Amino acid sequence: MVLLEFSMSPLGKGESVGKYVARSIDVIDRSGLDYRLNPMGTVLEGSWDQVFAVVKACFEEMRQECDRVTAVIKVDYRRGKTGRLTSKVTRVEGLLGKKIRK
Amino acid sequence: MVLLEFSMSPLGKGESVGKYVARSIDVIDRSGLDYRLNPMGTVLEGSWDQVFAVVKACFEEMRQECDRVTAVIKVDYRRGKTGRLTSKVTRVEGLLGKKIRK
Amino acid sequence: MVLLEFSMSPLGKGESVGKYVARSIDVIDRSGLDYRLNPMGTVLEGSWDQVFAVVKACFEEMRQECDRVTAVIKVDYRRGKTGRLTSKVTRVEGLLGKKIRK
Amino acid sequence: MVLLEFSMSPLGKGESVGKYVARSIDVIDRSGLDYRLNPMGTVLEGSWDQVFAVVKACFEEMRQECDRVTAVIKVDYRRGKTGRLTSKVTRVEGLLGKKIRK
Repeated sequence: MVLLEFSMSPLGKGESVGKYVARSIDVIDRSGLDYRLNPMGTVLEGSWDQVFAVVKACFEEMRQECDRVTAVIKVDYRRGKTGRLTSKVTRVEGLLGKKIRK
Repeated sequence: MVLLEFSMSPLGKGESVGKYVARSIDVIDRSGLDYRLNPMGTVLEGSWDQVFAVVKACFEEMRQECDRVTAVIKVDYRRGKTGRLTSKVTRVEGLLGKKIRK
Repeated sequence: MVLLEFSMSPLGKGESVGKYVARSIDVIDRSGLDYRLNPMGTVLEGSWDQVFAVVKACFEEMRQECDRVTAVIKVDYRRGKTGRLTSKVTRVEGLLGKKIRK
Repeated sequence: MVLLEFSMSPLGKGESVGKYVARSIDVIDRSGLDYRLNPMGTVLEGSWDQVFAVVKACFEEMRQECDRVTAVIKVDYRRGKTGRLTSKVTRVEGLLGKKIRK
């Protein structure tokens, strides 16, 4: 299973791009995949094809109105591991022996 | 103020690197800067010098034991804006008119 | 058209991963897409589906032998622009009025 | 020694940001560090402090005119290795036994 984090923004649509980001989050939320939003991106969990299909759907939505779109995507694949959307953070807390902000 | 997200890993220390990641989180937690941990990285908020000092401190810790270290860093600077560690997500929720997973 | 830069590495295969990187470059080279290799990644040019098909092919190759694979992907889409694999650097040289290292 | 690749762009300055990118390249070119420009970023080689000082200098230049600035930075530190700005690509060519585009 794959953890994929991405952020996607239009260039040339001004300094505030929250409107476009919100549409991406809506696409993600309706995809059915498990995800977590953070201040710098969204983390998805699924198969390679599942998570990249969501990224592409966000791109297709954004390019309808935007002539330039940039994205940064990080992928972490680990064979046979699921539930890492929550377990990676929990494991770090266990190793540290204290609660951390998340 | 700057939002900075980063992840840092050793190469050559096996497939599970949670031990090293936990030490970075400990460095971050003791830095005094506000932060949020997510499954793919940690987001810090502060001045350019403050957030990069924390990234360097994590690197100095990791390279004591690791001969190869890789990192990915994303920066989002916005003049005069503070509190974006929480406000960026809240704003997207407001635009969507629904709660999202975070 | 899309410019996509990516780097992909196994975790848990030691500190030197050149062998695995070389296989990815071979997949890229045989894809028929135009590309440029640099010390930190490879830049491809093509449609969204073309460039992501190459990234996936590299992943499929790497995961045959590697249980953990990480990747970083940057995307720059610009409607109606082709040839940016060379034109972006040339344009910067023109603006600066001097040759730069590439 | 550290290889650092980065790209830095203003948000809110229109779709074409070549003018701002050219200024960054000028800062880099005058820094004295060895570097290579590619279509998606610039790769620097130096100590941690050297390469991050250049990134900060580019940021200081850009924020004079831009209220929002984003950057993506990738770091690859390897103890005791220098000259990787050229050797990483050469090594891949050696492993493949053929010339590749760069």
